[in-house]
Amino acid sequence: MTILSTLYVCVTCRGGGEASAGEPRSGARLLAAVERGSAQAGTNLSVVGVECLSNCSRSCSAAVAAPGKWTYVIGNLDPEQHASDILAFARQHSAHEFGLPVWRERPEHIRKNTIARVPPMPLKESP
Amino acid sequence: MTILSTLYVCVTCRGGGEASAGEPRSGARLLAAVERGSAQAGTNLSVVGVECLSNCSRSCSAAVAAPGKWTYVIGNLDPEQHASDILAFARQHSAHEFGLPVWRERPEHIRKNTIARVPPMPLKESP
Repeated sequence: MTILSTLYVCVTCRGGGEASAGEPRSGARLLAAVERGSAQAGTNLSVVGVECLSNCSRSCSAAVAAPGKWTYVIGNLDPEQHASDILAFARQHSAHEFGLPVWRERPEHIRKNTIARVPPMPLKESP
Repeated sequence: MTILSTLYVCVTCRGGGEASAGEPRSGARLLAAVERGSAQAGTNLSVVGVECLSNCSRSCSAAVAAPGKWTYVIGNLDPEQHASDILAFARQHSAHEFGLPVWRERPEHIRKNTIARVPPMPLKESP
């Protein structure tokens, strides 16, 4: 069974790139860039905007997760520069059984800006 | 249904407190302190030692997670000081339906050293 990964993008982040007056926040612009990139590439990842991943000091922020796989939080994402990097990492995460893409194959920005990771939880509750 | 939370403690962390020559790493000492505290309190949390939560620059590190709940990563934990704080937070997380304890009720160290959080995933895969 292939379990597709979900890419969460924080839409409330203000860091990473500069927003002109009246422009949406950096996080909202990152989400829009990721959604465009995902549509263009025809990936069937689930891309979900969320409010606050509690990584405000190193924003913009995104997380990649799937049932039974490791969860990753990535930071310092610039909406103008890093949408393709986080999408590439999410595809690698989706393709790996445990969500552990080979380190050297991850985009450089992802390798250098991994904020945290959390082990998979059991897929089923024990009785 | 009550879903008990799992408290992951990184055993490879070197930060937070000073280890004398021959002493176990800070992370391993934090795990031992958490296990002692959990046994003394009679909590039925699951406490699990893991290798690297990728929060090395702000270690010691722990994470609290449960199916259907928000996941939290906490940093800057001192094995001599903060075992009771992370245990208290894990109990609060366990008691809350979505793993979102009331902010002002969380221990101060937890409030000030939350590294990241990730939304719950759906408990069941869609077909």
